[in-house]
This record gives sequence, C-alpha cells and structure tokens, in this order.
Amino acid sequence: ASPGTRQPLDRLLDDMTWNEQGLMPAIAQQHDSGEVLMMAWMNRASLEETLETGRVCYWSRSRNRPWRKGESSGQQQQLIEARLDCDGDTLLLLVDQLGAACHTGRRHCFYTRLTREQGEVISAPLVDPETLYGASQ
Amino acid sequence: ASPGTRQPLDRLLDDMTWNEQGLMPAIAQQHDSGEVLMMAWMNRASLEETLETGRVCYWSRSRNRPWRKGESSGQQQQLIEARLDCDGDTLLLLVDQLGAACHTGRRHCFYTRLTREQGEVISAPLVDPETLYGASQ
Repeated sequence: ASPGTRQPLDRLLDDMTWNEQGLMPAIAQQHDSGEVLMMAWMNRASLEETLETGRVCYWSRSRNRPWRKGESSGQQQQLIEARLDCDGDTLLLLVDQLGAACHTGRRHCFYTRLTREQGEVISAPLVDPETLYGASQ
Repeated sequence: ASPGTRQPLDRLLDDMTWNEQGLMPAIAQQHDSGEVLMMAWMNRASLEETLETGRVCYWSRSRNRPWRKGESSGQQQQLIEARLDCDGDTLLLLVDQLGAACHTGRRHCFYTRLTREQGEVISAPLVDPETLYGASQ
C-alpha cells in the first residue's frame, strides 16, 4: 500500500491479529527522545479507549482488567501517535511519559544489559517506588 | 538492584519468563537514530546465539526455525547492545540495521498510523521487496 492509503478503523481492528487471549503487544516509546520505555499488552477495547481518550490504557494480564497507565502511580502516558506494524500484530505507541514508566521507579524498564557472560543493571530509579505505590508494594 | 549489580548470564536465562512456546518478544531499535524497527520473537537458543555472534537471530514462529535476520534478504541486523526488562519477559535490542528491516522493503514495520477514525499508511518502501526476496514473494 502506498503512502496516503486509508482504511476505516473498524475494518482495521477486525483484521488485526490478536493472540489467543485477544491481546497484542504494545511498545511505548517517548515521542521526542526516542527512548523505548516499556512493553505491555492491549486488547481491542483498550486500544479503542486509548485512541478515543488520548490517554494510554493497556490490558493487565496479571490483574485481568484494563490498566490505565498511571492510575495508581500517577505516572500517566499521553498518546502522541499510535502505529500498527506490517503484520497487524504489534503496536508502537509514541507517548509523552510523565515521570517513571517502570514500576521500579526507573524512567524505562530496560535497565539490565546482557552480554555473553552476564547481565548488569545499568540505571537507577528516579523515584522511590514506595512514593508511587505506597509502602505495601 | 542498584547500578552495577551483576548476575551470570546462565542464571538470568533460567530466571527469564519465556511464554508457553518458550519465546519472548524482542524489540529491535536502531541504536543511533532511535527508530523502532520491528518486533519479533526469540527463544533461549536464539538469544544465546545473538549474544555470541553479534548478529541478530530470532525464532520464526511461521517457519518454526531460527531466523537469522537478513539470511534471505541480505538486510542483516548487527547487535550493538541487548537489554532485558524489569519483569524478565521482554528484550530490547539496540541494533545497526542494514537497509530495510521490514519485509515490505520499508525501513521499519510501523508504517500505519492509527487515529480514532482510520488507519493511514505513512511511509513508502526504500526498496522493492522483489529485489530482496525474488519475484516468487
């Protein structure tokens, strides 16, 4: 398809490849710096909500419910642009991330560097997770 | 864990969360420009090979075999750095991509922009896929 080719969203949503659980991986990238912040999952309803509201909503596999990013931590993601890949089975979300994307209090989740010998932690939290989630976490 | 904390690779590989098929999503990002190129899957053996050789090897779910990126198209990915996320279930690969990462001949796979009304193709192939894979594709 050449640039400018358009399709109604409903038809695209029907044609996307959702997995057995009705989910698709969604990569969140900070729109200006290019940092890859995290990867989480979306179902059709959470993608539709995200496109409607402009605030990123994932599907939490552990809690089995919609997960409006930042709902407990305050570290929200504003959607700048959503993109679908060639196979229709992965999303890239360009976002504006408030504070720390990672539940450890780090800016992003990819903080362990792997080599052929070892893994090494390469970044420190920006904030104490207890201040984000309370001392129970 | 604070910056500088290290673990042997074997132990990390044992502790990672591979899915029911023994796979993990791997996001490829161009190391210098920050472009997110594609998302594919790795198993333990393909990650180990990638770290050993410095050339990215995925696991092809459709062909059910190792997929050394560029083996038929010539569009190889050289590994610059591999990173694991906080949950141990997603990889970020900083790579140097030769030519087009996408099988459509585009630089990257995320070329359909989604809005609440529609999807729109926003980039054109760099190369004709027939020159990458032959006219049979």
